[in-house]
Amino acid sequence: MRVMMRVAYDGTGYCGWQRQPNGLTVQEVLETHLAGLLGAPTAVIGASRTDSGVHALGNIAMFDAQTQIPAEKISYALNQRLPEDIRIRGSREVPEDFHPRKCNAVKTYSYRIWNSRYGMPLLRDTSYFVFTRLDVPRMREAAAHFIGTHDFTSFCSPRTDKEDKVRTIYRFDLLEDGPLLTMRISGNGFLYHMVRIMAGTLLCVGEGSLSPDDIPRILDARDRQAAPRMVPARGLTLEEIRFEEDSLNFTEA
Amino acid sequence: MRVMMRVAYDGTGYCGWQRQPNGLTVQEVLETHLAGLLGAPTAVIGASRTDSGVHALGNIAMFDAQTQIPAEKISYALNQRLPEDIRIRGSREVPEDFHPRKCNAVKTYSYRIWNSRYGMPLLRDTSYFVFTRLDVPRMREAAAHFIGTHDFTSFCSPRTDKEDKVRTIYRFDLLEDGPLLTMRISGNGFLYHMVRIMAGTLLCVGEGSLSPDDIPRILDARDRQAAPRMVPARGLTLEEIRFEEDSLNFTEA
Repeated sequence: MRVMMRVAYDGTGYCGWQRQPNGLTVQEVLETHLAGLLGAPTAVIGASRTDSGVHALGNIAMFDAQTQIPAEKISYALNQRLPEDIRIRGSREVPEDFHPRKCNAVKTYSYRIWNSRYGMPLLRDTSYFVFTRLDVPRMREAAAHFIGTHDFTSFCSPRTDKEDKVRTIYRFDLLEDGPLLTMRISGNGFLYHMVRIMAGTLLCVGEGSLSPDDIPRILDARDRQAAPRMVPARGLTLEEIRFEEDSLNFTEA
Repeated sequence: MRVMMRVAYDGTGYCGWQRQPNGLTVQEVLETHLAGLLGAPTAVIGASRTDSGVHALGNIAMFDAQTQIPAEKISYALNQRLPEDIRIRGSREVPEDFHPRKCNAVKTYSYRIWNSRYGMPLLRDTSYFVFTRLDVPRMREAAAHFIGTHDFTSFCSPRTDKEDKVRTIYRFDLLEDGPLLTMRISGNGFLYHMVRIMAGTLLCVGEGSLSPDDIPRILDARDRQAAPRMVPARGLTLEEIRFEEDSLNFTEA
């Protein structure tokens, strides 16, 4: 059977999602423990190949298994084996032709900025500390320019393997909770480094070195050099992936 | 001059606040770096001697210094030297007779419980994972019995050095945010392990092994054996200390 899991992780200790020779990744840890549980080598495919240091509340992973364990119980059994910084929030059977990167879906990322005169120890691995007082209303004005369908070449690392740079952003909210500023962005897909370059560009607006009206100009340039700044991975969290085909989504929190 | 600082820390890597021979403590780190900054051995006194693994957003520390650095600037200079898991949120001069444990103050602690079928990696060091579904309205009913002035002997470790076990609780709120349950408790003082034993007892109420009406009985017993359970340090955060003498309080966030 084909099984889909919802996966949460603290990315601090991992070289990202995708298996690689130079460091431990979330995919490798999942594959190791699934092999132990299922008694057979198991290849895991992720919906989002998050970068080194990026966190997730709800990445989606898929694998094929021949097992007597009911699909819904695999999450519990696997959590017994996994390290504390990776947890399976749920598992279920999906159709044999399901592929998490080939379904239409809305992905939601958040980027957290701690905007204060001093760093916050408890948020040091999950936010980016910015000393300069940010002008959030101006950042909000700038963020509105990202909403809609655009060519995001300027906001994509040249190291991408994607040809098509057109993506649609549905929402781009900036939420303030005291010194903690959370950017929450939903779209039909995100290019390599796209959220971190958008967040870095908004930071330039918030600090005053760019104006909100610079965003359309940077989008039009279709050139990574036009976007001035990328923020560190640690502030970024993949919050949720919701499939257009609603029967594929997990129902419970 | 006498200087007061507001200190935030991630307690995960420390054997608590108070200097001790068997492990690194927050007090020791502050004293080491203050000595480096001020060029003289400096003894630091804390308002709350938090336990191993307990966090703080606003503990209060005090020391005496002979220095040309203005008291308000010491926070910035010290933050340059401190490890990322300790930060000074502010520093100021206080009267020579100020002592942080001899002033009347309202202390506020929070205890966080992650109540879900799966653990949450990003909250593993700052909350306690409880699998059993908790009855929060019943816990709230139980918490109300703590409000007011009581003898808290049943909720105090026998290893305390305090004779007087009478304390006043001003507020005891239970806040739900999805699976995250935050208990927030304000009082004029807290005995050794008091918040963690109160939280553990409420957990028994939430799981059904105690009823809200058991709280007055446990208080009346004045016996640590009457309170059934203590929860781990990692869920506990010292949020704030506000002095009755308002001129002593930091004004900015």
